[in-house]
Amino acid sequence: MSPIAMTAVALLASAAMRQAADPAPPMSAADQIIGASPAGDWRAIDPENTLYLDLPGGRVIIELAPAFAPLHVANIKRLVRQGYFDGLAVVRAQDNYVVQWADSDGKRSLGGAAATLPPEFTAAFDAALPFTPLPDVDTYAPQVGFTDGFPVARDPAAGQTWLTHCYGMVGVGRDNAVESGSGAELYAVIGQAPRLLDRNVALVGHVVQEIDILSVMPRGKGALGFYQTPAERVAIHSIKVAADLPPAQRVPLSALKTDSPTFAALLQARRFRHDDWYKVPAGRVDVCNVPLPVRVGRG
Amino acid sequence: MSPIAMTAVALLASAAMRQAADPAPPMSAADQIIGASPAGDWRAIDPENTLYLDLPGGRVIIELAPAFAPLHVANIKRLVRQGYFDGLAVVRAQDNYVVQWADSDGKRSLGGAAATLPPEFTAAFDAALPFTPLPDVDTYAPQVGFTDGFPVARDPAAGQTWLTHCYGMVGVGRDNAVESGSGAELYAVIGQAPRLLDRNVALVGHVVQEIDILSVMPRGKGALGFYQTPAERVAIHSIKVAADLPPAQRVPLSALKTDSPTFAALLQARRFRHDDWYKVPAGRVDVCNVPLPVRVGRG
Repeated sequence: MSPIAMTAVALLASAAMRQAADPAPPMSAADQIIGASPAGDWRAIDPENTLYLDLPGGRVIIELAPAFAPLHVANIKRLVRQGYFDGLAVVRAQDNYVVQWADSDGKRSLGGAAATLPPEFTAAFDAALPFTPLPDVDTYAPQVGFTDGFPVARDPAAGQTWLTHCYGMVGVGRDNAVESGSGAELYAVIGQAPRLLDRNVALVGHVVQEIDILSVMPRGKGALGFYQTPAERVAIHSIKVAADLPPAQRVPLSALKTDSPTFAALLQARRFRHDDWYKVPAGRVDVCNVPLPVRVGRG
Repeated sequence: MSPIAMTAVALLASAAMRQAADPAPPMSAADQIIGASPAGDWRAIDPENTLYLDLPGGRVIIELAPAFAPLHVANIKRLVRQGYFDGLAVVRAQDNYVVQWADSDGKRSLGGAAATLPPEFTAAFDAALPFTPLPDVDTYAPQVGFTDGFPVARDPAAGQTWLTHCYGMVGVGRDNAVESGSGAELYAVIGQAPRLLDRNVALVGHVVQEIDILSVMPRGKGALGFYQTPAERVAIHSIKVAADLPPAQRVPLSALKTDSPTFAALLQARRFRHDDWYKVPAGRVDVCNVPLPVRVGRG
């Protein structure tokens, strides 16, 4: 299931409903809108910006965001292509916060990758980037919306835009120095959007498939959710760039374009969700409460 | 770990930091504020409004909110005291949404408990209830803040107040009819706050200890995250009201009073978090990004 699932806010259907004669839940407005979407409202996710994180529980798929953190994305791909992550492990799982993977024993060489990078915590405001604004007020930023499938905040007065820490976002762990995040240590958000981190750390992508492999990992009992013993860690079989696999071995994924009419219709249906179950439409929605529809298949 | 953990937004500390000579992370401003708090800023959590949900993974502790949903809380306690939940199971785990427990086979009698209840999705605005407002704008409600430890929204113009669907909140599953939620089917939020549910369903409490026992449960592969076979369900050993156990068998818990000077100081430290790691303070905070400090021990 996507992190940002196809039907993220489903009914709080009772078990009794599930026991009814027709076991299929009624098709939601969102499902109907997606079902009627033209092929042109979808984009193929670029294999060159796709990572396969292979774990004992299966394959987590991450889409990278080079438009927002080009140096970090390039460095991560350099590390991946050196096999840097293969045989490392998830070393931290903090409830309602993040899972994190790294070379905890500090034995790997970064090889040709950089050890430090300019921060890239925000990007320069760029009017040329597509941006689908949300009409609703946000606690943390003057403007929020979506760019190329990613949740984004903007502050035109400050000339800045940045990715927001929503569920499933992937970022770069760092030490106190702002340039200390190389991409050798990555985390994924598995809880309430920790928006206080926005503009303090580089976000580089989001999980588009199977985040539950990460989100169900046993929480670490050490400080900050670090596992206390190496035996608790979850081994990483490998991380690969999808483009480096033969086409037949890739998972073809498509995401709904966030500047498409279908996405606009979904946003409205979500803001004013009102059906047999929902009695009081909120009339608004938070940027981290909007799922990105992702499906297997091209275009 | 509390859902609403003592140090909910911790550093994205690197593993390298953890490997340093002093394994203890530096004490955060929040830890220092809590460490200096007077005993009078804490309240004992009432055993009469505390549920022990005993699962194979351990004990989840829930504090009930009778001020907001008195009829539902009373009915749930009636069910608990009949042993209604003992031997039932968690039947649903939907990623980034909820876990839910119920009598999926529909074989239990509700006994002396009501099968339907008035909605209690909102409560009448009551100026006598303590309320610590958040100064920051909220996407979903005119006012947000805290009442008796719970995250709360208010709409004075509509004369309403309601609990908000933050991580760890516990609510009552229902069918389409608004009075169909008896409390025999309960859910806990384990993902991004599904605030679209606010005012559509009765919230009755929050998890104050060990929510990770719920949040790591394997996600169901059926529609809405329901488990597809009985074998996947997670058995409930029992649910008990803490007050029904001998005092020596209870877990004494205290929560920080949300109308205390210590909580006010924590809020400010969180809104303007700025330390060796945090470079850009947000200057604001979302009602679902504020942890409730809970500790073992009385007062």
